[in-house]
Amino acid sequence: MKIGLIGLGKMGLNLGQNLIDHKHEVVAFDLNTNAVEEMKQFGAQGVSSLKELVQTLETPRILWIMVPHGVVDSVINEVKPLLTNGDIVIEAGNSHYKESLRRYNDLKTAGVHFMDAGTSGGMEGARHGACYMVGGDAEAWSIVEPIFRDTAVENGYLYAGGAGSGHFLKMVHNGIEYGMMAAIGEGFEVLEKSEFDYDYEKVAKVWNNGSVIRSWLMDLTERAFSKDAKLDEIKGIMHSSGEGKWTVETALDLQTATPVIALSLLMRYRSLENDTFTGKVVAALRNEFGGHAVEKK
Amino acid sequence: MKIGLIGLGKMGLNLGQNLIDHKHEVVAFDLNTNAVEEMKQFGAQGVSSLKELVQTLETPRILWIMVPHGVVDSVINEVKPLLTNGDIVIEAGNSHYKESLRRYNDLKTAGVHFMDAGTSGGMEGARHGACYMVGGDAEAWSIVEPIFRDTAVENGYLYAGGAGSGHFLKMVHNGIEYGMMAAIGEGFEVLEKSEFDYDYEKVAKVWNNGSVIRSWLMDLTERAFSKDAKLDEIKGIMHSSGEGKWTVETALDLQTATPVIALSLLMRYRSLENDTFTGKVVAALRNEFGGHAVEKK
Amino acid sequence: MKIGLIGLGKMGLNLGQNLIDHKHEVVAFDLNTNAVEEMKQFGAQGVSSLKELVQTLETPRILWIMVPHGVVDSVINEVKPLLTNGDIVIEAGNSHYKESLRRYNDLKTAGVHFMDAGTSGGMEGARHGACYMVGGDAEAWSIVEPIFRDTAVENGYLYAGGAGSGHFLKMVHNGIEYGMMAAIGEGFEVLEKSEFDYDYEKVAKVWNNGSVIRSWLMDLTERAFSKDAKLDEIKGIMHSSGEGKWTVETALDLQTATPVIALSLLMRYRSLENDTFTGKVVAALRNEFGGHAVEKK
Amino acid sequence: MKIGLIGLGKMGLNLGQNLIDHKHEVVAFDLNTNAVEEMKQFGAQGVSSLKELVQTLETPRILWIMVPHGVVDSVINEVKPLLTNGDIVIEAGNSHYKESLRRYNDLKTAGVHFMDAGTSGGMEGARHGACYMVGGDAEAWSIVEPIFRDTAVENGYLYAGGAGSGHFLKMVHNGIEYGMMAAIGEGFEVLEKSEFDYDYEKVAKVWNNGSVIRSWLMDLTERAFSKDAKLDEIKGIMHSSGEGKWTVETALDLQTATPVIALSLLMRYRSLENDTFTGKVVAALRNEFGGHAVEKK
Repeated sequence: MKIGLIGLGKMGLNLGQNLIDHKHEVVAFDLNTNAVEEMKQFGAQGVSSLKELVQTLETPRILWIMVPHGVVDSVINEVKPLLTNGDIVIEAGNSHYKESLRRYNDLKTAGVHFMDAGTSGGMEGARHGACYMVGGDAEAWSIVEPIFRDTAVENGYLYAGGAGSGHFLKMVHNGIEYGMMAAIGEGFEVLEKSEFDYDYEKVAKVWNNGSVIRSWLMDLTERAFSKDAKLDEIKGIMHSSGEGKWTVETALDLQTATPVIALSLLMRYRSLENDTFTGKVVAALRNEFGGHAVEKK
Repeated sequence: MKIGLIGLGKMGLNLGQNLIDHKHEVVAFDLNTNAVEEMKQFGAQGVSSLKELVQTLETPRILWIMVPHGVVDSVINEVKPLLTNGDIVIEAGNSHYKESLRRYNDLKTAGVHFMDAGTSGGMEGARHGACYMVGGDAEAWSIVEPIFRDTAVENGYLYAGGAGSGHFLKMVHNGIEYGMMAAIGEGFEVLEKSEFDYDYEKVAKVWNNGSVIRSWLMDLTERAFSKDAKLDEIKGIMHSSGEGKWTVETALDLQTATPVIALSLLMRYRSLENDTFTGKVVAALRNEFGGHAVEKK
Repeated sequence: MKIGLIGLGKMGLNLGQNLIDHKHEVVAFDLNTNAVEEMKQFGAQGVSSLKELVQTLETPRILWIMVPHGVVDSVINEVKPLLTNGDIVIEAGNSHYKESLRRYNDLKTAGVHFMDAGTSGGMEGARHGACYMVGGDAEAWSIVEPIFRDTAVENGYLYAGGAGSGHFLKMVHNGIEYGMMAAIGEGFEVLEKSEFDYDYEKVAKVWNNGSVIRSWLMDLTERAFSKDAKLDEIKGIMHSSGEGKWTVETALDLQTATPVIALSLLMRYRSLENDTFTGKVVAALRNEFGGHAVEKK
Repeated sequence: MKIGLIGLGKMGLNLGQNLIDHKHEVVAFDLNTNAVEEMKQFGAQGVSSLKELVQTLETPRILWIMVPHGVVDSVINEVKPLLTNGDIVIEAGNSHYKESLRRYNDLKTAGVHFMDAGTSGGMEGARHGACYMVGGDAEAWSIVEPIFRDTAVENGYLYAGGAGSGHFLKMVHNGIEYGMMAAIGEGFEVLEKSEFDYDYEKVAKVWNNGSVIRSWLMDLTERAFSKDAKLDEIKGIMHSSGEGKWTVETALDLQTATPVIALSLLMRYRSLENDTFTGKVVAALRNEFGGHAVEKK
């Protein structure tokens, strides 16, 4: 099929190659012209504007948007007047499902199908086989399913239901990911503080072969330790890009007790701080009632 | 090699077959004579007492104990006087690493090597390829390594270091397992309370193919949902058998912040209760200061 | 001073009497005419509409709104066209501070001062001495301060700063309250499960006299146990009315680690459930990998 | 009454004065002879050895031990052979209740009553009115009750039941204290990160007058901010001295879900670290699967 690919960052460039591997035609656009050139060398047709991209596609057009979530609306606003009834917009980034619902309803007024496609598997997945969770109209799904089937790993795509259900599922996937990663991290911290002297690469390796906790994350843990045996070179600052927070906020809205996911997020925030005001207050209180010494700056 | 296998429960019976598959000779004992008979049908030599088991083995004897952790000491106490210098006792159950250290030091006085072998992978693993984390003397390890190699999955065994290091590693493995399981469970609970109507078996399947959270636990999640689509038939009561608690207790001793593992344990305890005293006190307080209605029994 | 009191529920009726005790004139309105009659018997002037209430007051008018937070906007929308430059609207309920900021900016366009007054201390406080945290224009504060001073306990009122700062402070106050209540509840649950047989009323009493944790909440705990020694008659279902959730949501927005407040909220949600989907998933997983029995419904 | 006071540290010296204020005779001992001299100036009789102390008292002797918990056993072991049937040993420090149970049983063999007296209220309390939770034999309690009544604040003492019940109650008291302090600290951290500019001393003051969270800890919070408006001079390092940990360990043994108390403890441990291994692992994993940059040392 012929696909208009918008956004040629880390994920987009890999996906473009994946599409071409599977005999799809890729019409590629990015504000960064170097990225367009790179994509062309892999066999894509490059265009210099969203307008040109839309004009190059035949109806029903298929647009695949893979841009940072802060830019999605501006892309949609620009292409919307150019699209016609029956066109399909796939948004494969990490957007909040409520944004996807809004965009779905917005494009519906123009007769355009919006599909929210949560994508997992990282860059490797985008290149060689991703995992997709897709929400939107069943009618549109029947048209685009081959694209997902071709670029996913075997069994690695799911039509999850109506609009928003794809990004919701991806959001919860990331919430689980936060919890799993924190569990693994905490486990290694206990090892690190113990009286034993483990080789963490070997530990991750054995845990990844036959144990109950074998997983891709454990595989990646092994890789990380293979490069830096004690992770001495990096700081334990855990950034986050939104989905974990959205999961916890959604859980609160649904009155759902998710302590493990919530704590994995809060500990990421804690890691951004050198010192905490909570700690100062508690230390000051211990000093007030018990005369316990505080540590001075 | 010739191995004395003590304990023919779910794990022991499977391991016995695994050993025989790999051309080891198994001398089997259990208080349950039916289990001994069953093991004999798979090709093991059955014995009717620990004494007979010890006498049947040649020195250096290799004893593999796979019994509930409450019974380990009585087995060791009974065999200890029968063993001779250079014999090797492998304890492959879920014992606390401090118990293993104690047993190691106790048997050392008799010149007997004690090895603590944490075993993961469940019954399937015991039968077709387990995951082992083993602590103890390097000298003894060089003798018994082939047994572990043969009955583990590829790369699924690790000599972790000195006495206790095997069971410590298995304990932390289980702590991570608690956290991962809770993260998965919480994620599905958010899905269950959401506005969307997911097919959980399909969700687990897609998450297990190409996603960041693909793992054996997600594979098992798929299996569980394949049998009971909404888990309607079971109660959410989460029992625990000790290692999670030991991990948290050890983390406290090591002054390590493990909120995710700790909460996964505490929520298991919470699940054992229909109602809580904490809840009663909080509800009563809300009534006292704000006149908020309490729910009566 | 002459004050238009809108809302004669549990809090409003008590506050009205408090105002009258301190020689203020109260012009009272509620949709519930019985409540207006009751307020009149305590010396207030009753009116039968918001319009009449506004007309009865002299400029600069002072309106004190004490209604459920879902009704605040409709009251404001109704009175806004009737108010004139310099009038002051005090909103003393539990509104989200962002709503208060919005209302402040809305009324400002009409030259009307909006003040957000977080109120603590329950019904007792409203009647005999409340605790107020007030945000809004300093100019308006200088006019209304005497009302707060008169109806608060000594030192029990604070001009907290610009618009929204009052309700923000009240929100965080409630977040702390959630944490404190949960800590007290958890403590008593540990006592309840212990080998000792304590008299909880006496425990709360001794803890409220001279200990580090003496507090009004402990005083209320004593009262609660004095009525029902083991709280046998009530269920531990912990409802919540919003401020705790807002505190956690705000903490997430500010990337602040507030595990204690967050968990006190999540455990309230947990208390609303008889069973959890998380628990079902974890129990099913334990069964899958370890053959551990699940409890059937 | 005549009381042998062993241990003249911060708590002991204050309690000694308190006893003398209430017309008790104090026979004082400490290894630190300066402390003994200081106590003598307040009217106590100083002695230079535990033996002399025991000999100076009449039977039934009353010994009040107020020493660090690591020293309690050596004191008891030294006095035990000198004591006679019916003597009473009060241990008023922060010992684990299981240690107290052991000591009770040990001294019982010599006919000596051991009482575990949990003491709260800090140095101020010891001087002017403490809070006591006392376990031990009812027979001994009837003899020593006047001492507790005199040196406690009004209603500030409780005979809690059999041996161990006093220190157990004090342990749980401290667990609640941990939770309350963390809740207060977290609340102020939210304020500190907010868009508003609060005067924390005034906030603590208003919260301590009429609000639901008024408490001695809030009073101490006000004092702390009065000395250092933003706590700029101290670090947020939260040490702990054992009771919080014991509470969580006990909760685990009792299978009690105490997330708030547990997290208040874990965050103290977290505050002792500049960086965490958990954080390193999570940051490394984010880099592995998503190419997210890590922060280098």
